[in-house]
Amino acid sequence: MGIVVQKFGGTSVGSVERIQAIADRVIKLSKAGESVVVVVSAMGKTTDQLVQLANDISDQNPDTREYDALISTGEAVSAALLSMSLISKGQDAISLNGYQAGIKTESVHSKAKITNVECSRIQDELNLGKVVVITGFQGFSSENNVTTIGRGGSDTSAVVLAAALGSSECEIFTDVNGVYTTDPRVEPNAQKLEYISYDEMLEMASLGAGVLHPRAVECAKQHGITLHVRSSFNEEEGTRVKDRSMEIQHPVTGVALKEEAKLSITNIPDTPNIASQIFTALSDAHINVDMIIQSNQEDGFNDISFTVSREDLQAANDILESVSKTLNAKGIISNGNISKLSIVGVGMISRPGIAAKMFSVLGENNINIELISTSEIKISCVIDSSEGKRAVQLLHDAFELG
Amino acid sequence: MGIVVQKFGGTSVGSVERIQAIADRVIKLSKAGESVVVVVSAMGKTTDQLVQLANDISDQNPDTREYDALISTGEAVSAALLSMSLISKGQDAISLNGYQAGIKTESVHSKAKITNVECSRIQDELNLGKVVVITGFQGFSSENNVTTIGRGGSDTSAVVLAAALGSSECEIFTDVNGVYTTDPRVEPNAQKLEYISYDEMLEMASLGAGVLHPRAVECAKQHGITLHVRSSFNEEEGTRVKDRSMEIQHPVTGVALKEEAKLSITNIPDTPNIASQIFTALSDAHINVDMIIQSNQEDGFNDISFTVSREDLQAANDILESVSKTLNAKGIISNGNISKLSIVGVGMISRPGIAAKMFSVLGENNINIELISTSEIKISCVIDSSEGKRAVQLLHDAFELG
Repeated sequence: MGIVVQKFGGTSVGSVERIQAIADRVIKLSKAGESVVVVVSAMGKTTDQLVQLANDISDQNPDTREYDALISTGEAVSAALLSMSLISKGQDAISLNGYQAGIKTESVHSKAKITNVECSRIQDELNLGKVVVITGFQGFSSENNVTTIGRGGSDTSAVVLAAALGSSECEIFTDVNGVYTTDPRVEPNAQKLEYISYDEMLEMASLGAGVLHPRAVECAKQHGITLHVRSSFNEEEGTRVKDRSMEIQHPVTGVALKEEAKLSITNIPDTPNIASQIFTALSDAHINVDMIIQSNQEDGFNDISFTVSREDLQAANDILESVSKTLNAKGIISNGNISKLSIVGVGMISRPGIAAKMFSVLGENNINIELISTSEIKISCVIDSSEGKRAVQLLHDAFELG
Repeated sequence: MGIVVQKFGGTSVGSVERIQAIADRVIKLSKAGESVVVVVSAMGKTTDQLVQLANDISDQNPDTREYDALISTGEAVSAALLSMSLISKGQDAISLNGYQAGIKTESVHSKAKITNVECSRIQDELNLGKVVVITGFQGFSSENNVTTIGRGGSDTSAVVLAAALGSSECEIFTDVNGVYTTDPRVEPNAQKLEYISYDEMLEMASLGAGVLHPRAVECAKQHGITLHVRSSFNEEEGTRVKDRSMEIQHPVTGVALKEEAKLSITNIPDTPNIASQIFTALSDAHINVDMIIQSNQEDGFNDISFTVSREDLQAANDILESVSKTLNAKGIISNGNISKLSIVGVGMISRPGIAAKMFSVLGENNINIELISTSEIKISCVIDSSEGKRAVQLLHDAFELG
């Protein structure tokens, strides 16, 4: 039989009882003859608590190397506990941290990319009949420092390991039953999808569907690995993320909402490379920028607006403060209370008028659109966060996803 | 200037504020031109909480490899936080875990011995002007597994590092001002000692003075390193543990009390190697036995009694159950409520009658002695734990230590 890679998120390993339930589930699979590799996140709110400690002790500015050394302990705890539970139930097992599992990354901290996995130790332990439990979210650099690969990165760890170990499917266990047409907490009529394509999932993930980390989806697409997103609390089949060529029924597959923050730098005198100066500075600080709008005014001044994750708002604002002096810009406007509302679907490629329909639904309901961006399979609008839920429900209805 | 090794215990790193206070103290030393290596324990009750999790998830029987992987995270947290605090205060610093610091141990889990330290990374970081913060209590084995060296082992880590780095003194910061003639919580007249010899400290430590781990004292003696036991909450000089050749004023230097458990295996038919069979089995399970009394009865049967730490009582009892069958012994008596009361002093070598005085003080006060053991500089009696405090006070008075 092959090697099955299963990833369990923070809620799934949130208590002793839940870890024991996972152990039972893993043992069933192992007894069926599968070699099982389990990737775990930190328990429940552990990572948040560690981040809080880091911020408290460093005036909100923790050294990134030490930050990684600190928060990587969360996964070490849950991996050891799961392995311990398996062993006490009679299933031989071993926990491996990023270093022991051979997960090598760049020498960047807190957002490192995995460069390769040296699987020999994992393979050796599997050959001994052990379930191998691996800390998600972390690796180590060539300087022997602990690195982390960004929040939600345990999904990516699981996919990278599946690829390195030659698995064709990677199971992502979470606290929901699969991927829905939109967030069921926002819209009770949301439907579980049986399949979704990588590209759609990529858009849904990056837009805040909150089930899968986009890097994990990208990585799965690149390696042709099917992701099976399913609940750790029941045996139901979830949603499979894979290439799909079936008949497209709806032009829109899902509606997503993501809380973000918006920054605008205004009245910049027209000089070359304005955007380059701003976004290079942000990139150097490892701040991911999402939507960007640049507008040239008639008087020769420019405005640039963009969105970032809310946790990067302060850092991005600080960078703009210094860049704006260099550029002689008039001011900076920051808004931590906006959301990105998006519709996603491979079906929209061949159907015109989808964008127009989205804008008119929002307009008719007095929801103001601040920024717009589009791709082949996605249309996104920035709106005020207070209108987020209502907007999702309106679009879910309008595109008949219920 | 030389390299100063400082070790801070769990109470000293028990909160963000305390870690910041340590950072200030370390920075002062670093600014004075010293190269500083700091060894830290886990914060406050962290280790106890992790042990609780391990017991909960494994029906009180955690796999020892996973136990080490789990509890070693406590020191990783405090080391990263202290390093972070130093950096945010402008002092370059780096935290290193057991693997990164090159602390190699045997391949035993939960009670491994350090075999050697490969200091190159520590030296390199010190040469870059960094304070190096190292996780106490842990190392790694030749199989690349995380090992721990037993509770209280951070003291040992600090001494081993001091020896490996060529320091002549190792500062052990704790929540008391130094080593006292007895526990000041038990006897308010207890006096702080300016100096104490390794051998006396070794007896005091193994007898539960609770300030220093005995392995740390042994190791310091072996390498000729002076231990300076002092408070992390003030600047007072503490107690220096070193070879001492000064005039001995009192025959007794201190009184110590240690909670233990007693096991007796009774009516063993007389066969060769009884003791060997029992204590080999205990040793194989890494259970440290303290006092041992064997008595031969006239009818050809033997009784053997010994003491172990209370946490080992259950495991020791289980082993006796199986050994007693092999030996056809009549029964096992276990008592988890005894204490070892001891007087320690290099001065007693040259003064007769010290033991007699101890026994008569206890006898006159109706304190029953269950077992007695003596060494050149120590006399220990096992008594009921309920009499412990009163016995300490009586002996402290009788030997004029106040």
